[in-house]
Amino acid sequence: MSLQVVQLRPDPSQLVYSFGGHAPLITVDPGTVIELSTEDCFGGLVRGFDDLPSQVCHFPDLNPVTGPIAVRGAEPGDTIAVHFVDIKPARDWAISSTFPHFGALTTTHTTAMLHEALEERVWVYDVDVARGICRYKARNSDLEIELALDPMHGTVGVSPAANEVLMSITPGAHGGNMDTPEMRAGTTAYFGVNVTGGNISIGDGHCRQGEGEVCGTGVESAMETVIVVDLIKGGGPAWPRIESDDFLMCTGSTRPLEDAYRISQHDLVTWTGSLLGLDDLDALQLVSQVGLAPVGNVVDTTYTMVAKLPKTVLGSAEVFDGMHDRLRDIGRTYLS
Amino acid sequence: MSLQVVQLRPDPSQLVYSFGGHAPLITVDPGTVIELSTEDCFGGLVRGFDDLPSQVCHFPDLNPVTGPIAVRGAEPGDTIAVHFVDIKPARDWAISSTFPHFGALTTTHTTAMLHEALEERVWVYDVDVARGICRYKARNSDLEIELALDPMHGTVGVSPAANEVLMSITPGAHGGNMDTPEMRAGTTAYFGVNVTGGNISIGDGHCRQGEGEVCGTGVESAMETVIVVDLIKGGGPAWPRIESDDFLMCTGSTRPLEDAYRISQHDLVTWTGSLLGLDDLDALQLVSQVGLAPVGNVVDTTYTMVAKLPKTVLGSAEVFDGMHDRLRDIGRTYLS
Amino acid sequence: MSLQVVQLRPDPSQLVYSFGGHAPLITVDPGTVIELSTEDCFGGLVRGFDDLPSQVCHFPDLNPVTGPIAVRGAEPGDTIAVHFVDIKPARDWAISSTFPHFGALTTTHTTAMLHEALEERVWVYDVDVARGICRYKARNSDLEIELALDPMHGTVGVSPAANEVLMSITPGAHGGNMDTPEMRAGTTAYFGVNVTGGNISIGDGHCRQGEGEVCGTGVESAMETVIVVDLIKGGGPAWPRIESDDFLMCTGSTRPLEDAYRISQHDLVTWTGSLLGLDDLDALQLVSQVGLAPVGNVVDTTYTMVAKLPKTVLGSAEVFDGMHDRLRDIGRTYLS
Amino acid sequence: MSLQVVQLRPDPSQLVYSFGGHAPLITVDPGTVIELSTEDCFGGLVRGFDDLPSQVCHFPDLNPVTGPIAVRGAEPGDTIAVHFVDIKPARDWAISSTFPHFGALTTTHTTAMLHEALEERVWVYDVDVARGICRYKARNSDLEIELALDPMHGTVGVSPAANEVLMSITPGAHGGNMDTPEMRAGTTAYFGVNVTGGNISIGDGHCRQGEGEVCGTGVESAMETVIVVDLIKGGGPAWPRIESDDFLMCTGSTRPLEDAYRISQHDLVTWTGSLLGLDDLDALQLVSQVGLAPVGNVVDTTYTMVAKLPKTVLGSAEVFDGMHDRLRDIGRTYLS
Repeated sequence: MSLQVVQLRPDPSQLVYSFGGHAPLITVDPGTVIELSTEDCFGGLVRGFDDLPSQVCHFPDLNPVTGPIAVRGAEPGDTIAVHFVDIKPARDWAISSTFPHFGALTTTHTTAMLHEALEERVWVYDVDVARGICRYKARNSDLEIELALDPMHGTVGVSPAANEVLMSITPGAHGGNMDTPEMRAGTTAYFGVNVTGGNISIGDGHCRQGEGEVCGTGVESAMETVIVVDLIKGGGPAWPRIESDDFLMCTGSTRPLEDAYRISQHDLVTWTGSLLGLDDLDALQLVSQVGLAPVGNVVDTTYTMVAKLPKTVLGSAEVFDGMHDRLRDIGRTYLS
Repeated sequence: MSLQVVQLRPDPSQLVYSFGGHAPLITVDPGTVIELSTEDCFGGLVRGFDDLPSQVCHFPDLNPVTGPIAVRGAEPGDTIAVHFVDIKPARDWAISSTFPHFGALTTTHTTAMLHEALEERVWVYDVDVARGICRYKARNSDLEIELALDPMHGTVGVSPAANEVLMSITPGAHGGNMDTPEMRAGTTAYFGVNVTGGNISIGDGHCRQGEGEVCGTGVESAMETVIVVDLIKGGGPAWPRIESDDFLMCTGSTRPLEDAYRISQHDLVTWTGSLLGLDDLDALQLVSQVGLAPVGNVVDTTYTMVAKLPKTVLGSAEVFDGMHDRLRDIGRTYLS
Repeated sequence: MSLQVVQLRPDPSQLVYSFGGHAPLITVDPGTVIELSTEDCFGGLVRGFDDLPSQVCHFPDLNPVTGPIAVRGAEPGDTIAVHFVDIKPARDWAISSTFPHFGALTTTHTTAMLHEALEERVWVYDVDVARGICRYKARNSDLEIELALDPMHGTVGVSPAANEVLMSITPGAHGGNMDTPEMRAGTTAYFGVNVTGGNISIGDGHCRQGEGEVCGTGVESAMETVIVVDLIKGGGPAWPRIESDDFLMCTGSTRPLEDAYRISQHDLVTWTGSLLGLDDLDALQLVSQVGLAPVGNVVDTTYTMVAKLPKTVLGSAEVFDGMHDRLRDIGRTYLS
Repeated sequence: MSLQVVQLRPDPSQLVYSFGGHAPLITVDPGTVIELSTEDCFGGLVRGFDDLPSQVCHFPDLNPVTGPIAVRGAEPGDTIAVHFVDIKPARDWAISSTFPHFGALTTTHTTAMLHEALEERVWVYDVDVARGICRYKARNSDLEIELALDPMHGTVGVSPAANEVLMSITPGAHGGNMDTPEMRAGTTAYFGVNVTGGNISIGDGHCRQGEGEVCGTGVESAMETVIVVDLIKGGGPAWPRIESDDFLMCTGSTRPLEDAYRISQHDLVTWTGSLLGLDDLDALQLVSQVGLAPVGNVVDTTYTMVAKLPKTVLGSAEVFDGMHDRLRDIGRTYLS
């Protein structure tokens, strides 16, 4: 197999902070492998305990993303596939922090309360890619714990519908800042195309992240990432979908969280029905007994839920024309 | 080890439909093994396609539970531990169904809309305990799929605080109908005691269940279940906790779903902090990176979230004085 | 008109703290006028700045109610009408306060956050019934403002369905602690009957209250209240309704607040449709253009919304067989 | 007083469908009176029963707005005031309708359910400006009811922060489609400025509207509207505020509805505190007893709540330097 490989390493001035509103940085053919770099959600400006994000970062320049990447031939209504071949932390340190009025267990600008903001605190993780670990170090005790690396991108998406321009920290039907740990290497994300070229952007790499990202940030790191992008004419899903070797996944991003759950489950039920030839209720029944429902995020401007179906129930049904397997093979060829 | 084993097989007239409001059916010493039977959520009245639950079941006699089981010496503020040794489907068939105005993807009495109710439909599963499977059979197609048994109890709890009497279908701080698949054999559930004896009741067995129970029911089955109950003086948690060999879990049950998430994560953060000697923010940081957050239910009168911490991060910290290990050993002795 | 008048002035030991779970204190005939006294939500224990509610009140003995009052002949499915003839503050002072972990703008036990509780603070109002005012006095400034008395009961309801026993601070389908300022003198509240006698209880008088009760309490006062109760066989509404000279009102109590809105609007739409002979969509259209939607409470265990329809659109349609007008006339006769 | 009066009557090709993303159509000095025309939310394309909105309107060209109107001198952080002098229906008919998957009592794209969409139905109202009425006519019965005109604009706002471009149907911190009936003639709306000029746009006129807009639309009409715009340097509020002769109002737009309530109440509490020299808790106490809390909308992409404070409690406190009174006087001069 002969691979078309391009590189995308934007300098800081090229980073963008929204989905929509920017011309493509590059345009690639379907099937292209892209080696790209991403900055962390702080723009790399938080490097130690005293670099408080609210002081060193300046709204709205938060959560930079790399892109847009246009896919040649992509038109509204089509489906863009983004397969993650590799996601590798770019530094030997990573950052997590609280941020005033941000997070699930604090007053925010929308869950508005009369409390003072919680303390803003920075944690610095040691990252050892060779050993596959990052090191948690408590700030107010001596506790240190080695945690396995499980790198992922919090923010992946395309230009929104209706000509909207949305901050990169907002998840939605266009993808964006879904902050689900499922967006790891080996998975394929599918997005419905809203504008010519689709315009993929990627950022917000995490060395790892719990489900929900309860403090508001993962183990934030610049990343060296390799993706393959591809195109399916038509069939654009209303909400982002993800496929791994083992699971089909649907996402929903809105508030309250039960509506994000409803979106993701509704999409999984109807998708399962179409794959297996079941009517809505028979598909609902199957998903009810085998589906998983982990939280994505409960901290961003909208909340994200993931609905997961084990592919073992699919039998011989083919998903997106076998796209995931094809892209995974391209990825393996690239890595080998 | 000499085990104290008692049996609790109530006849139908002894089943109850609430937490609170009933005198104990039996009183046992801490450390007692109890072999008990539970009826399914339909009271065993749905046995075929034509037994529509809304016709054969009669409100409020829904979701019968076995109990209450009083624990000798339990007083308000104490902690009751319920370890599930074994949960075995009692019949070679099980039922799932939709129910009018019940479920996550339908108008309900609270998410009130002007739609007609969705179709009420019954699915009958074949259950083969020896082979460890139950068989999904679509109603409007020929599709059949073997699914692994993963038996659990949707409903486990104690008498509520404040002398309340709550329908058994309601989850809350007392436990109740949390409908999380985590309540399987090999786990220990902890409840804060609100009344003398605690008054444990158990029901709503499922052969298996997806996260969220999106259609409103699992693969509902009468169960033959073995538990060990024990008592810790003091330390009663505000919300039910669950421990398995691999995870600590906290639950929260309320609406909207993000508040259930908040309750469960808040409890996991503060519990983790107390186990590891971390202040709130250092504990929040750790949970943010390693915690899991699967949905329990999004269909009952309140919704349930589960927050999970892998026990690998606990080091030598001892949880509830090692209760889970002790009860698991009792369970293994019983089974051997 | 010859009025049947009874008195109900329970001593403190007779006050109860739940809906359900208590035998009637009195049983009356339909059409009876009842002169009753209610204690304030603090049980009268907060009398000055230093009487912090969390210290002088003891859970679960919060929000005492007077009752139950059984209505002779009331059976499940019937409708009980409670007309408020007069609600008069019983003392020349009243209390409002914050309470730790209670209120709309603070972390609570369900909207659980890592903040410390807000300050617990008591305000003492002077009450002058003759002049019709109560006096707000800031604690940390000299500001004082005279506010018009608009006395109402935060808590009015009947025994719940399904044999539940619910804390008196919980609003729901049985009524309870809806905390809407609409429950003032001159209005008639309608409740569906769940148990023989219905079992009305009333408490939580407020000299006045804003919509939402955002700090968690109104201007709390013991009350001297006069009601007329009556009975309609059948027709019990699923959720409490209220009628004034000018408005029909429906209530819904649940979380999230949009679901409380949905319940109340759904009931108002279908009720309007049945009164005016409109199908659902024509009734929806009418309510959409003329309905009001004030908040009841956003602080209690569930939240309450009120949907209001101006009676001017009703033409000659008769509501509950003219019950409100009849009871108002009884009330006027009593007062004259 | 010499008034500066300009006209803004865009032709259909000049209408826009977003806040942000468009150069100003005109730029005016502070204090300018603007006579402007707005099209209805359907772009005037729905004119009879058979003009189903989902067929004659084309996403994303929904809810056109007139503007942007830049205010000379307005810079980020400033406050723009928009006073409504007059809002007059432009035609002798107006339209309301249901719309598939839109409204509070139907499955939507976010409250996703397995129901079919509700029927799409159009109602045509007769409008008689001289008599001050519009006429409701049921579709499936003979009922007709005259309703008082109470014209208002559902959509009023400025360009969003962070360079976002948001569909005009979305309400938020920039204003937008709040759909509150409070936005009527005689009121002044205040917006925080995010971009040079502020860039005001206005649309979505309703002959009248209930609170919540439960079916999804008001009595939709093109409008002839007169506003005065003005500028206050600095002091830009985080969320839109409204002032009438009788009330101060704060708005919040998000989901779930309780968070919209929290935003609006939090802003009203802190604003009241700053006007009256009260600390947060003393202001919270006052608002708790005198505030009103009507719903704006529960149908749009986010929901809107309004928090209202009667100005009688303000004493001599001056709001926004007396801006409302000044603009009302300009309006009266214009009208006379």
